[in-house]
Amino acid sequence: MTTPSYTSQVENRWQKRLFISVGLDGDSSRLPKDVQATGTTEAVLEFHRLIIEATRDQAAAYKPQIAGYEAMGTAGFEALIETVRLARELAPEVPIILDAKRADIGSTNESYAKAAFDVIGADAITVHPYLGLETMKPFLERTDKGVIVLCRTSNPGAGRYQDLDIDGRPLYQHIADDVATNWNTNGNCGLVVGATYPDELRQVRSIAPEIPLLIPGIGAQGGDVEQSVKSGLTAKRDGILLHASRSIMYAYEKHPSMSTSEAIRHEMNVLHEQIAAALP
Amino acid sequence: MTTPSYTSQVENRWQKRLFISVGLDGDSSRLPKDVQATGTTEAVLEFHRLIIEATRDQAAAYKPQIAGYEAMGTAGFEALIETVRLARELAPEVPIILDAKRADIGSTNESYAKAAFDVIGADAITVHPYLGLETMKPFLERTDKGVIVLCRTSNPGAGRYQDLDIDGRPLYQHIADDVATNWNTNGNCGLVVGATYPDELRQVRSIAPEIPLLIPGIGAQGGDVEQSVKSGLTAKRDGILLHASRSIMYAYEKHPSMSTSEAIRHEMNVLHEQIAAALP
Repeated sequence: MTTPSYTSQVENRWQKRLFISVGLDGDSSRLPKDVQATGTTEAVLEFHRLIIEATRDQAAAYKPQIAGYEAMGTAGFEALIETVRLARELAPEVPIILDAKRADIGSTNESYAKAAFDVIGADAITVHPYLGLETMKPFLERTDKGVIVLCRTSNPGAGRYQDLDIDGRPLYQHIADDVATNWNTNGNCGLVVGATYPDELRQVRSIAPEIPLLIPGIGAQGGDVEQSVKSGLTAKRDGILLHASRSIMYAYEKHPSMSTSEAIRHEMNVLHEQIAAALP
Repeated sequence: MTTPSYTSQVENRWQKRLFISVGLDGDSSRLPKDVQATGTTEAVLEFHRLIIEATRDQAAAYKPQIAGYEAMGTAGFEALIETVRLARELAPEVPIILDAKRADIGSTNESYAKAAFDVIGADAITVHPYLGLETMKPFLERTDKGVIVLCRTSNPGAGRYQDLDIDGRPLYQHIADDVATNWNTNGNCGLVVGATYPDELRQVRSIAPEIPLLIPGIGAQGGDVEQSVKSGLTAKRDGILLHASRSIMYAYEKHPSMSTSEAIRHEMNVLHEQIAAALP
């Protein structure tokens, strides 16, 4: 069975007016009480099964963040592979973005691409831009896979280098332009722009009118949903993935009277409605 | 048993006039014929044991590159942990740099730091600068660990962003300056500057007179040893790690009449002599 391309998968979700990217982060220290398994890997997977079942109708993408899995060691690496397999099985229409922020010289990127796409089985990966286009071919030539480049990140100190002025334009805008113009020849690139920076989001959308944007930072990091939707949408009224990890995954902490699944469904609905209200 | 700090370990190697960083990359597809094991993980470890035993007297550091291990899946992740354990056992005086080029928001970097230093057991890690100092505290606060920041990378297209002019200075020089001035408050930072760019190496050394430099790109990538030594040394006549992966690891391909160990020793000696000849 061939998996459809990342681009076609995400466009199918947008046609259904679905724009939420849901986190599937590996953290065995923060699990709801109705997860029964005691072993680390089993408990994380049981929790992820709950999340996927509660979100698959409304999720436009799943985004496992690799760091938490790595911090659990070898069993964590296996749990990541199992999480991707589980998402594929339970939600076959939802593309999976591996948030790994990789980038190295070309021969090393070949191994990273193999790990992300063939071993872990993701449909897309996030990457750092710092080494430039020349080393990124092992990712970009996987035309069925998405390559989502850090542009303006969501963290408070993001501007330290990303805003440095080059010929009257900040660095992140040069990168947005270069990715849209030169990296995206296979039509499989995206950009990461934080929801915490709506002005910068608008600038990136104006420089790269059609490129898909992965927008982290709503929820726990405080980014505004309405602003993000309005600043990020393309002329076709799509092209955005609003990413929430902690506010969805740990919804049960906010709603102690609900089951874990109910709490997740509730927060997904709230976010889905906020997005729907912001759509033009 | 407490492992000494990365900084003190590498300074001890420099006092012995040792400057070579040796690769321990995970690639099960490229193994010498005198490695007998058939299982992927076992074969890689047997090969790494040969390399460590043949290089430990002359190595200033070991640098496993994580991508190849990840491409081998869960068994590869375990092989990385075992490689670090093996290096620690067979060469306890040689510090271990995990070449992983990580960097994300702060909460994610906590997991990356835990994975690199506590799970994998490395003494230092390489990181991307793009998100700025603000997110990097989980690495930098591990004062016994080294944090080696990409500055001017060794790849042919490195200049695409790294050379962009900001107030009369290229981006990589701003980063060198910022790392030396602001990131390095715990004295545990280093910079990556490719041997393929001796002029840029000289510029970085002049901006950051004392910071340790990890210099990849000699050997397979074509960087010049003499130029790298002369451009990179500090006033104290140390502060450099010249990194060779493929030219040492796969020395047996160049010397088919030698055993794998003999070939590695031969190439280590050649490189050691080249460095010694270039020292002032």
